[in-house]
Amino acid sequence: MTDRSVSSDVKALVFDVFGTVVDWRSSLIADFTAWGAKRGIDGDWEGLVDAWRGAYVPSMDEVRRNPARGYLALDTLHRRALDKLVVDFRISGLSEDDLRYMTLGWHRLAPWPDSVSGLTRLKSKYVIGTLSNGNVALLTNMAKHAGLPWDLILSAELFEHYKPDRETYLGAAHLLGLEPDRVMMVAAHNNDLQAAQELGLKTAFVARPAEYGPHQKRDFKAEGNWDIVAGDFNDLAAKLGV
Amino acid sequence: MTDRSVSSDVKALVFDVFGTVVDWRSSLIADFTAWGAKRGIDGDWEGLVDAWRGAYVPSMDEVRRNPARGYLALDTLHRRALDKLVVDFRISGLSEDDLRYMTLGWHRLAPWPDSVSGLTRLKSKYVIGTLSNGNVALLTNMAKHAGLPWDLILSAELFEHYKPDRETYLGAAHLLGLEPDRVMMVAAHNNDLQAAQELGLKTAFVARPAEYGPHQKRDFKAEGNWDIVAGDFNDLAAKLGV
Repeated sequence: MTDRSVSSDVKALVFDVFGTVVDWRSSLIADFTAWGAKRGIDGDWEGLVDAWRGAYVPSMDEVRRNPARGYLALDTLHRRALDKLVVDFRISGLSEDDLRYMTLGWHRLAPWPDSVSGLTRLKSKYVIGTLSNGNVALLTNMAKHAGLPWDLILSAELFEHYKPDRETYLGAAHLLGLEPDRVMMVAAHNNDLQAAQELGLKTAFVARPAEYGPHQKRDFKAEGNWDIVAGDFNDLAAKLGV
Repeated sequence: MTDRSVSSDVKALVFDVFGTVVDWRSSLIADFTAWGAKRGIDGDWEGLVDAWRGAYVPSMDEVRRNPARGYLALDTLHRRALDKLVVDFRISGLSEDDLRYMTLGWHRLAPWPDSVSGLTRLKSKYVIGTLSNGNVALLTNMAKHAGLPWDLILSAELFEHYKPDRETYLGAAHLLGLEPDRVMMVAAHNNDLQAAQELGLKTAFVARPAEYGPHQKRDFKAEGNWDIVAGDFNDLAAKLGV
């Protein structure tokens, strides 16, 4: 059923991307497994991908704690973490081009099955954009690769702050020329929605229980009073009256 | 004929928007004429639109000369200029909503006849984005209104510098993750291309001799050594091998 009060006031939807729109884990494991076989490089790709994502939050926390060092874009954080992980995982024989190829794997992620059709429906009524910790080039290249029909790319990089810093949510509303309550944050992560809601944005939760594969520990269901809880992006479109 | 050396190196095309992609003058005159008749408000809309655009460069120059006052987005500059012009043109009876409607006229501009088809072709091979002095909300709303299929919205607002300041061209290349010579600036204005070329970007000129109506004084033809000179966006696509 359409929630008319929400659907008529909201003008723009901004989306978390990693996990919410694209399946980073399966994409990277499949990519590196095929590429490693072709390149003759052996590795525990599944373990490496999980450890790589494990380094994500700590690496952003370090940027947050050290503002004087300047903002580092996610491509840079990914590469620094990878340089350590290939040692930890004893993967040898990697050239500079190989490390670059792997880092750019985050630009080549595949969407969940409902992402493109759901976004295309939502775009007919709303401004749709990313609001991701991925840098602009990463999100732009991913959209070309995956066919994601964004109206605009909004990124932590534009605000030099990573989510859940308030500058990201409020900065997105400001660039869109909208009051925060005209913007809806869509995410598969309760903590992202909580930060957005505290700043006055509307919220929609879409569960992605396979995001972390067998290691998923949270976000199986909505844990806050979100404006919309949807099964997938097509269900979100239906609930927004599209 | 395709220029193979340029077309294979360039990865992204960034477009000037006012005059290059959209026909601001005819759009605004038609919009205000129809709206004024309906609202019962009389005015020299053609004169007002020309004077409004005349205030554009001086208003950005003022921002440039006074960095301590902070960056002002183009919507704000448009509104400030309009507040003066309605007095100069003795247009009376305008409410706050009317002034807002008129200012947002810049969000409702129509494309040149070749813009949407040409951009759609170019998008199949290149990342295509705006690189305009318009603010992000203006460019995003215009794209929805006019059906412009941008991959991303790049704006002076993101760099808090107006073109032709170097921060805009180099900032666009940086956000795209590309060296400047992998980015092509597309514009109907020779001065925009000159600034881009001096910073290492590739350049494409598309003449829009009707931009200023009977008052056009310059930019009838290419006046620099641009990488490509095209008749319209479909010709540009053909010359880039799309």
